[in-house]
Amino acid sequence: MDDTLTTIMKRRSIRKFTDQPVEREKLQQLLEAAMAAPSAMNAQPWEFVVVTEKAVMDKFRHALMFAKMNAPAAICVLGSNRMQKGKAGDKFWVQDCSAASENILLAATALGLGSVWIGVHPLTIFSWQVSNILNLPEGVTPLNLIYIGYPAETKEVRTQYEEARVQWGPFPPGEKSKRSKKPAKKDEIILDESTDEHSDQ
Amino acid sequence: MDDTLTTIMKRRSIRKFTDQPVEREKLQQLLEAAMAAPSAMNAQPWEFVVVTEKAVMDKFRHALMFAKMNAPAAICVLGSNRMQKGKAGDKFWVQDCSAASENILLAATALGLGSVWIGVHPLTIFSWQVSNILNLPEGVTPLNLIYIGYPAETKEVRTQYEEARVQWGPFPPGEKSKRSKKPAKKDEIILDESTDEHSDQ
Repeated sequence: MDDTLTTIMKRRSIRKFTDQPVEREKLQQLLEAAMAAPSAMNAQPWEFVVVTEKAVMDKFRHALMFAKMNAPAAICVLGSNRMQKGKAGDKFWVQDCSAASENILLAATALGLGSVWIGVHPLTIFSWQVSNILNLPEGVTPLNLIYIGYPAETKEVRTQYEEARVQWGPFPPGEKSKRSKKPAKKDEIILDESTDEHSDQ
Repeated sequence: MDDTLTTIMKRRSIRKFTDQPVEREKLQQLLEAAMAAPSAMNAQPWEFVVVTEKAVMDKFRHALMFAKMNAPAAICVLGSNRMQKGKAGDKFWVQDCSAASENILLAATALGLGSVWIGVHPLTIFSWQVSNILNLPEGVTPLNLIYIGYPAETKEVRTQYEEARVQWGPFPPGEKSKRSKKPAKKDEIILDESTDEHSDQ
């Protein structure tokens, strides 16, 4: 198997798939990778729906303008208010579920699968469509659909590194901007109950 | 090097570090991994600040209650409105930057480094403190601080997989919930300019 740095560069958005079904064992491995992600205060504010039924995949393809690809399987990553362990998930569920999603993409790449992340939240109409197709219960919010299958296209291994996006050391002191306005005291109440630490202990 | 699935399970939040500095070449590799992440419409709504100056790390440790650890280095992942390529970043920057952050954590693990994700956004007071310490310009928002260094603690390799968090196939049809209320037409304007697709082409 490739080492991790290579896998990170090999992960590309794959939109053409063969007809080969994805083995349940591999889907299981993707979920194990997802749930190895960090989350704020280890709240694990996530659930997952695995779709392999062609009729359901066809519903996605029909309803969602950016989900037309012929993938045989999908994982819908859900923010889960009902299963989160602690309130940190209220503020950090998008970040936590996105880390879990990236783990799915990388694990898929490592297993020889292709994948593409189709954003859903915060686009209300897509969220509504996915919720209807999957009969989502109260207390969960679909973050995305991750289409998965055996790739029928190849793309080059690459990063999109740009030096201009990196600042080594703090920015030089500049003009005072909005950052000079200290937040009002009321903002600090979050310190009482929430936390900012991504912990997985 | 470990294969990717192993690295995903080995990645743990490390909070104790040795005094050994992190080589600039390795920090560079972390940034290359970060910028290999997918983003909605390939908007790449991100920038990165790399901190290795002890005086600046000490400022973080003094100011931020969850950033007291003795790491020798940090990467601050910024949402970048000023450098994003397209408006998809307006809605998806948190997800995109979180995927980039997870890549940093996994690349660090693969390189023998320890790391911990310290959440900043959307906690106003932390965002304000980090913006001040790093003299952040207009047009960027700090998502997190990722502390990095050589680990002085070890943790077991593991997932937190829970079968109860997985739904195979759609949920069974249940009582009608809020999902039955179709969004108002105004919500659909997002279709005009935005997109939901995480593309890296």
